[in-house]
Amino acid sequence: MSRHTLSVLVENRPAVLMRVAALFARRAFNIESLAVGPTENAGTSRITIVVDVEPLPLEQMVKQLNKLVNVLKVAELEAGSSVQRELLLVKVRADNTTRPQVMAVTHLFRTHVVDVAPDALVVEAIGSPEKNAALLRALEAFGVRETVQSGVVGLSRGPKALADRSRG
Amino acid sequence: MSRHTLSVLVENRPAVLMRVAALFARRAFNIESLAVGPTENAGTSRITIVVDVEPLPLEQMVKQLNKLVNVLKVAELEAGSSVQRELLLVKVRADNTTRPQVMAVTHLFRTHVVDVAPDALVVEAIGSPEKNAALLRALEAFGVRETVQSGVVGLSRGPKALADRSRG
Repeated sequence: MSRHTLSVLVENRPAVLMRVAALFARRAFNIESLAVGPTENAGTSRITIVVDVEPLPLEQMVKQLNKLVNVLKVAELEAGSSVQRELLLVKVRADNTTRPQVMAVTHLFRTHVVDVAPDALVVEAIGSPEKNAALLRALEAFGVRETVQSGVVGLSRGPKALADRSRG
Repeated sequence: MSRHTLSVLVENRPAVLMRVAALFARRAFNIESLAVGPTENAGTSRITIVVDVEPLPLEQMVKQLNKLVNVLKVAELEAGSSVQRELLLVKVRADNTTRPQVMAVTHLFRTHVVDVAPDALVVEAIGSPEKNAALLRALEAFGVRETVQSGVVGLSRGPKALADRSRG
């Protein structure tokens, strides 16, 4: 099993996300992360999906995604030729005693504190899944209350856009 | 119509995202953005959904989400009492002539350049949807090649975690 990131351009319709999710569910492929949001074109959304599968099932999945109604383009984002980032928000315990230590960790990881309460901080981080995992490990000593992650989003490196590619 | 952000804790199973997406599709509610990723607990995923709906259908939707198999908690993130962020990657045209101007915009918005090609840059930004929209407008003059957004993710302000709340 290995991790793959798929970038899928779709028409912005209510049922398209359901059809995409159903395709993965039917094969019992667990989606590790999925992010869907608007794009530079008002009628189009972009779905980034991370799955842990063998290369062959992935190839079949790409073919089946391409056949779905409202799916415009599908491409795999390879690690070396793409930029992949995820957004992480972490709520960590921090009181007057531990706050300086928590702040030291957040500075080290170049993250920002976006909410301060008497006994907790919320930290925002942007990075690769590996970097965000390292941040979480560093904060665990203080007590992580809760986290939310955006799922990976990515773009190919260089000037070309996904919409430039021929379908397939 | 007004925009609402729902935070949904679910068990990490292949079909759960499909069931959530199907619930919205059945009502023809368009999902503006959706992000699902792992949480601080290995068996749990967190889905953040932004929808444009009237308050009453939203209330029914929350009730129906709560009834779904594998859904653990549902809460609305209110703007004033939560931190909400999205991650944006933008590929913008930039050659030797325009690169300094593009860089000036990225500095102004405190964003980072994460890929450089002879005729394009990829910029990563983290912010509110409004801030990211302003960045995009500023970059449009140079030629936006493509964008990808994570969808909004959010946490309540203060020390409490979603998992602390009683179900409902």
